[in-house]
Amino acid sequence: MDSIAELRARLRDFAQERDWGRFHTPKNLAMALSGEAGELIAELQWLDETAVADGLAQGALKGRLEDEAADVLLYLVQFAEASGIDLVEAAHAKIDRNESRYPAHLAHGTAAKQADLHSPPEA
Amino acid sequence: MDSIAELRARLRDFAQERDWGRFHTPKNLAMALSGEAGELIAELQWLDETAVADGLAQGALKGRLEDEAADVLLYLVQFAEASGIDLVEAAHAKIDRNESRYPAHLAHGTAAKQADLHSPPEA
Amino acid sequence: MDSIAELRARLRDFAQERDWGRFHTPKNLAMALSGEAGELIAELQWLDETAVADGLAQGALKGRLEDEAADVLLYLVQFAEASGIDLVEAAHAKIDRNESRYPAHLAHGTAAKQADLHSPPEA
Amino acid sequence: MDSIAELRARLRDFAQERDWGRFHTPKNLAMALSGEAGELIAELQWLDETAVADGLAQGALKGRLEDEAADVLLYLVQFAEASGIDLVEAAHAKIDRNESRYPAHLAHGTAAKQADLHSPPEA
Repeated sequence: MDSIAELRARLRDFAQERDWGRFHTPKNLAMALSGEAGELIAELQWLDETAVADGLAQGALKGRLEDEAADVLLYLVQFAEASGIDLVEAAHAKIDRNESRYPAHLAHGTAAKQADLHSPPEA
Repeated sequence: MDSIAELRARLRDFAQERDWGRFHTPKNLAMALSGEAGELIAELQWLDETAVADGLAQGALKGRLEDEAADVLLYLVQFAEASGIDLVEAAHAKIDRNESRYPAHLAHGTAAKQADLHSPPEA
Repeated sequence: MDSIAELRARLRDFAQERDWGRFHTPKNLAMALSGEAGELIAELQWLDETAVADGLAQGALKGRLEDEAADVLLYLVQFAEASGIDLVEAAHAKIDRNESRYPAHLAHGTAAKQADLHSPPEA
Repeated sequence: MDSIAELRARLRDFAQERDWGRFHTPKNLAMALSGEAGELIAELQWLDETAVADGLAQGALKGRLEDEAADVLLYLVQFAEASGIDLVEAAHAKIDRNESRYPAHLAHGTAAKQADLHSPPEA
C-alpha cells in the first residue's frame, strides 16, 4: 500500500475513534501544521551546520527531528484530507512547474542564482 | 513505486541538475518548510470556516492551498533526506505513540478533552 | 524611557552577561522568532472563537498567550538589533504604506474586500 | 508617547476606518503573525551568515527584512490588543523569569551550555 495512503487511513481511524474530527477543520489543521513546523525549527535554531551534523550523528538530535518531522507530515496529511486535496498529485504538479521555471542549464548554481535565492525556488 | 520514494527521487534529481544541493542543509530546509507553512496559513487567516468551505468548493482557494501544501511536502521530503530521516517510519512510530497516549475510550471527544486540547494531540 | 528601547537594553545586557551574543545571528534569531510564533499558534489551534474568549476571560489561556506573545516580542527586538533595523521606524513606514494601499473609503469592509483578504492587508 | 502605545493607537484607527475589526480575532491575528514570521524566515533561508551580513550592508536585503519585521510587530501589537494582553509588561515578566532560570554565572556560554540550547533560552 502506498505510504501516504496508509498514513491517511490510520489517521482517519485515529481521529474517528476519538471523535476528534470536529476539531480537524482546514484552518485548525493548518495552524497545527504551522505549530509543528515551529517546533522543528526550534530544534535547530542555535546550532550551526557542524553542530547539526554532529547532533544527527550522535542520535539525540536525530530522534527529536524525526519526531517533529513526523508531526508535520501527520498534520499535512490530515490538512489535505480535510481540504479535499490530493497531496501527491499537487506535489508532482509543483515539481513540473519548477522544472519549467528553473531550467537546469540556466539555474545551474551560479553566483547570480544565489542572489535570486532570497526567494525560495519552490515559492 | 511508493509516492514518498518517488517524490524523493524526483527532488534529488532536480537539485542535482541545478547544483542546489549545497543550499539544502537541514537548517536551511527547515527554514524553507517553516516559510511555506507560513504561506499556507496566510491563505486562511481572514476566512472563517464557512468562507474556507466556500473557497474550497469554488476552486480558487483550493488551487492555492494545493500549491502551498505541495511546497510543504516537498521541503519536508528534502529535509528528511538531508537529515537521514525515514519520514514514513517516523510517522508510523508517532501514531503508535499517540495511540498509547490517547486511548480511544478515554479520549473520546468530551468537553474535558477539549480543555486539554490547547496542546495538540500530536505535540 | 521608551518601552522598545528599554526592552532592547535589558536584552542586550542579558545576552552579554551570558556570552550568548554569538548565538544571536539574524538567521538564528529569525528561527527563534518563528518557533515562538509556532508556540503561540499552538495555543489556539483547537479552540473556536468562543472557546478563545472563554479561555481569555478565565485567565489560564491568557497567561499562556502572554508568555508566548512576550517571547515573540523579545526575539523580534533581538532580531532587529542584530540586523541593524529600527523596528519602530519600520513599523510606522509600513502603516504609512498600508494607508496608501488601502484607502479607507475604498477598503471599508465590503464583501468584495473580504474576497481579497486571502492575502493579509499588511502582506 | 511610548512607541508601542503609539503603534497600537495608529493600528486601532486604521482597522476602525476600514471596518476590519471583525477579522481581527485573536486566532486570526495569531495566524497572520505566524504567516509574517514565515515571510521573514523565507528571506534568510538560503543565505549563510556571511551572505546575510553582505545583504544587510548593501541594503536590498535590509529593506526586505525591515518590511517583514514591521509586519510581525504590527500583527503582534494587534494580537495583544485583541487578547487584552499588555505586551510590554508580559515581556518584562518574561525577562525576569529568564534571569532566574539562567543565572549569569552558570549560563556563561560554555560548550555544555550550547548542548542545552536546542531548546531556546526563552522557551
